[in-house]
Amino acid sequence: MFKVLDRAREIERAGIRIIHLELGNPRQPPPPSVIEAAIDSLRDMNVGYTSPAGLPALRDAVAQRHVAGGCSWVRADNIVIGTANLIINQFLDLVCDPGDPVVFFTPAFPTYWAAAAHIGLRVTGIPLSPAAGYELESGDVDAALAAGPRAIIVNSANNPTGAVYSEATLRYLASRCEERGIWLLSDETYADICYATPFFSMAALNLPNVVVMSSFSKVMSVPGYRIGYVLGTKAVVDKFALSNSTLISCLPIFSQAGCLAGLRDLEAYVRLQRDRFGSIASRSADRINRSDTLKVPPPRSGYYLFVDISSTRMDDMTFCTKLLEERHTAATPGRSFGAAYTDRVRIAFCGERREVDEGIDRIIAMTCGSQYKSGVSLALDS
Amino acid sequence: MFKVLDRAREIERAGIRIIHLELGNPRQPPPPSVIEAAIDSLRDMNVGYTSPAGLPALRDAVAQRHVAGGCSWVRADNIVIGTANLIINQFLDLVCDPGDPVVFFTPAFPTYWAAAAHIGLRVTGIPLSPAAGYELESGDVDAALAAGPRAIIVNSANNPTGAVYSEATLRYLASRCEERGIWLLSDETYADICYATPFFSMAALNLPNVVVMSSFSKVMSVPGYRIGYVLGTKAVVDKFALSNSTLISCLPIFSQAGCLAGLRDLEAYVRLQRDRFGSIASRSADRINRSDTLKVPPPRSGYYLFVDISSTRMDDMTFCTKLLEERHTAATPGRSFGAAYTDRVRIAFCGERREVDEGIDRIIAMTCGSQYKSGVSLALDS
Repeated sequence: MFKVLDRAREIERAGIRIIHLELGNPRQPPPPSVIEAAIDSLRDMNVGYTSPAGLPALRDAVAQRHVAGGCSWVRADNIVIGTANLIINQFLDLVCDPGDPVVFFTPAFPTYWAAAAHIGLRVTGIPLSPAAGYELESGDVDAALAAGPRAIIVNSANNPTGAVYSEATLRYLASRCEERGIWLLSDETYADICYATPFFSMAALNLPNVVVMSSFSKVMSVPGYRIGYVLGTKAVVDKFALSNSTLISCLPIFSQAGCLAGLRDLEAYVRLQRDRFGSIASRSADRINRSDTLKVPPPRSGYYLFVDISSTRMDDMTFCTKLLEERHTAATPGRSFGAAYTDRVRIAFCGERREVDEGIDRIIAMTCGSQYKSGVSLALDS
Repeated sequence: MFKVLDRAREIERAGIRIIHLELGNPRQPPPPSVIEAAIDSLRDMNVGYTSPAGLPALRDAVAQRHVAGGCSWVRADNIVIGTANLIINQFLDLVCDPGDPVVFFTPAFPTYWAAAAHIGLRVTGIPLSPAAGYELESGDVDAALAAGPRAIIVNSANNPTGAVYSEATLRYLASRCEERGIWLLSDETYADICYATPFFSMAALNLPNVVVMSSFSKVMSVPGYRIGYVLGTKAVVDKFALSNSTLISCLPIFSQAGCLAGLRDLEAYVRLQRDRFGSIASRSADRINRSDTLKVPPPRSGYYLFVDISSTRMDDMTFCTKLLEERHTAATPGRSFGAAYTDRVRIAFCGERREVDEGIDRIIAMTCGSQYKSGVSLALDS
């Protein structure tokens, strides 16, 4: 993904406008308090070190939000602030040894693959069914367990498919893993952006083998803050704090202060986000499915479309390169989510609504040629 | 170190003032532009992702500073922005396999030990001579090579001793390592705070086996920004960018924008810093050496004193615990810098001058008892 971004930036430096659909990099403004509190904290010269576990007030506020969400067991001691990408690496590093088997349900977020490769783990991908909208089903859980993993990463609400897994299946997964001593990382980064299905948090289960992670990147539209958190038993999250002290010392106080302020008036913001993304999601999926060349299951959460490009007879790399170089539109090759997905591309629809529309027009125009009549102008260099 | 900090914060939450001499957490204000540019960048909503290699403009500005400093070969392509602690981990991870031997000259910065332990490396510590002011000598280099390491970390200007190694010895170290295919990480974080000896940067050598790292934390007094960089051949630093994309995605744009602005008017600031720390260093070392119980070689750089407490007959943990609980002053146990240093503690003198004086008074009073006449009041709870 970052290679696409770097190439896109090169083209932009040559003066050409690129439509960015490659990264989950939201362009709507964050809640104003997130910015203002970070600025106030900088003005107050909060530029020193802090605890590797994170600002106590932020840990407490995150815990309270989970309590308010129904996980009454959660305390500040169960939360450690971190960077979401690093948390994925830390989790696999803490619970696995090199060579250990792990399971991801695929398609799966690129950092899972990169982190597993970095640590030298053997990954079994359990492919979820596109026909079932990439929903996790009990048969997928059984297949995962049959691989004998040390750890499983599960990601509902899902990036890149937008699927939201059912409470029943998640409970089944967790209890089977607990019986067998399998670690579970539940990546709940998109939990607040479920617009079509209720979300179930595995934090509700209060199981010692379940580690929940999330991030403020998406819910507050500040991916550049690089602030997220891990939730689990005190014994487990303390290990993440120790790992933080080795790897990064701590995270900036002012960024954490911004997220703390954002939590105070988050609920109104996430309602708007859900409405916004729900509307763009259904509109965008409809337009793609009407193209006759491309197919996508309508997402129920998040801001991605995992599009089937197989009828174009291009593989994902060819497709994305042609799209970037000829149509000045960036998307992510499907293989980033698992080697088998060379007939898929991921489109992120978290930019300006008009830009997303235009980007999807460009994609459809490229794949349909002149057969496609777009209502939107295709001014590439405007 | 962070455990001491956490305990100190607990005591502070009980309303007691602690004098912090445990962390290299400078309290003088950074160059104003570092703060203002970060605020401007936040106001401009630079809260999205950027390149894992860092902001191009910052990479370029860092390269230009090294060119201006005499390393004419350095280009933006030779710089990757990162977090200094993570760079240490990434270096060892990239060039070593678990079980490989590595060498540190001791006492050595705690993160080196933690990173090596995390990766499973076998560390040989080569102890430098306190009588020689912990200077690196050619015999130490020969001893390091005799250990047959895959990699060596060298840290001039040194934390915790304040030693600055000679150009001749550093050239000898680098050329012997190049002959033998040994990787060298030169941690030059305190390069700009050398007040008694000229600094030699290993970047000047332009060798493919030498990786130089530094940080803006100390030179700009913003450790909480968590921004530093690595310098080396393009092939090597590209690996750090790839590792960044796996581990942390990227670093905040606004923090990088702050450091970029800071580089523009840094030279005047570092001159003041050198004068300030040079003066506090000699004054503090003098006072400690006059105490008759404690001894320290006067540092030539940085803002640490690595104090010999052996005449107190307390080990470092006992000493630091007693100092914190009874005298409300935090210092770092010597064993953080190598298991053998249980008769040393590190004092950081980067706080307010008056606080540093008072902290050193408290230390001397604790070790000398009533024999010591302090000119400064010892109001513990003031």
